[in-house]
Amino acid sequence: MDEKNIKLILAYDGTNYHGWQRQTNGLSIQQVVEEKIAIMTDGPVRLHASGRTDAGVHALGQVCHFPYRGRLTPAEFRRGLNSMLPDDIFILEASSVSPEFHSRYSARSKTYEYRILNTPEADIFLRHYVWHISRPLDIEAISECLSRLIGRRDFSSFQSTGSSVQNATRTMHRAEIQRDPGGILRMIFEADGFLRHMVRNIVGTVVEAGAGKVNPEDFSGILDARDRSLSGVKAPACGLFLVTVTY
Amino acid sequence: MDEKNIKLILAYDGTNYHGWQRQTNGLSIQQVVEEKIAIMTDGPVRLHASGRTDAGVHALGQVCHFPYRGRLTPAEFRRGLNSMLPDDIFILEASSVSPEFHSRYSARSKTYEYRILNTPEADIFLRHYVWHISRPLDIEAISECLSRLIGRRDFSSFQSTGSSVQNATRTMHRAEIQRDPGGILRMIFEADGFLRHMVRNIVGTVVEAGAGKVNPEDFSGILDARDRSLSGVKAPACGLFLVTVTY
Repeated sequence: MDEKNIKLILAYDGTNYHGWQRQTNGLSIQQVVEEKIAIMTDGPVRLHASGRTDAGVHALGQVCHFPYRGRLTPAEFRRGLNSMLPDDIFILEASSVSPEFHSRYSARSKTYEYRILNTPEADIFLRHYVWHISRPLDIEAISECLSRLIGRRDFSSFQSTGSSVQNATRTMHRAEIQRDPGGILRMIFEADGFLRHMVRNIVGTVVEAGAGKVNPEDFSGILDARDRSLSGVKAPACGLFLVTVTY
Repeated sequence: MDEKNIKLILAYDGTNYHGWQRQTNGLSIQQVVEEKIAIMTDGPVRLHASGRTDAGVHALGQVCHFPYRGRLTPAEFRRGLNSMLPDDIFILEASSVSPEFHSRYSARSKTYEYRILNTPEADIFLRHYVWHISRPLDIEAISECLSRLIGRRDFSSFQSTGSSVQNATRTMHRAEIQRDPGGILRMIFEADGFLRHMVRNIVGTVVEAGAGKVNPEDFSGILDARDRSLSGVKAPACGLFLVTVTY
């Protein structure tokens, strides 16, 4: 039987996992999904995702794929997996794609959303899904900083401490903020790729601009310096959602 | 020092608790809050609430009170308790009230909200906070049934199986449904009191009307029969919120 390439789009609540990628010392989303697929395919399976997400980070539309020889249809995988998966992981779509498709290497862009609850009091029902900041934030200042991220740039200033990829240049297509009723601020980022912790480091820094501690000129200086030590704290994982991957 | 009567208004996520009331075989919200108060008052405290909530039921505004002799102010209780309580229980307000005030006996009405997610697919992020029903529900039919609950009535048909209070007559002030964007249906109930499981039994029954299995005339018949065996299934606890208690 010909080998098929099965693509899955999945949502997960990252609260109770040690991130996407298999770990020796904690349960990962990858491990849980691979184990359920293995039950259906009668043999071990290795999933490739568009990228890892850290512990506590959520996904509304993570993409992964795996090779498969057998008779099960994508719809059967979707139904079967959803019946077996825990209630914090859900397969939104399953499809058979061309052999050339690769979740990571074929991706053209990814979109992340970061949610801040900017109200005097925390909301216990949102505790796993937002960063609560009680001090009022100046949206205009944040918006001005975000606009300076657009374009093809070296994002070294916002990469994870200790990591240094060969090439930290990425193209940011979209970086904006909106305020929902209820005091939730959503920052939306779309780029052709993201460095490790890049969104969380950007958010931690623009929040300082929103609090009046950094102005947009300072922010441009931080970006241009390509020096992680200048940027702000890393925003907590729980506010971050991988929204979609575009191919 | 004179004895004060301290009133607390609190929110909690009921997901991880065996309900409000102290249990021998599981952790209750009452126990957690009493233990934190005892740390502040240097001695055991007994909390009285407006009523118990079942395991998995949430509160946006539960009310309780306790007697206190000491120098701590209500604001100090609020701040101190919030610093010690787990992140799924939050004290919204603390105040010193008259000695006659009793959370349960002084209550004039209570308001509950029941949330249904009526969309083809479940939403993993709402799994602890809604009842997911994929079949489209007819809101008009539900609304018509709910309107028949208004007024002073015997609600025996909707009390918990096995329980039989002396007097099942309650006055329902408000019983309505609204649809939010995103497919969440909210049913709001305000009454001078509720029987055990009454809201969940009503919701389970009106959902059958929304699915076309019961018509509003049947519903009136069920209400008038004062017979629990005629009403529908009990809706799951996770969709239920105690919203407010009015004094």
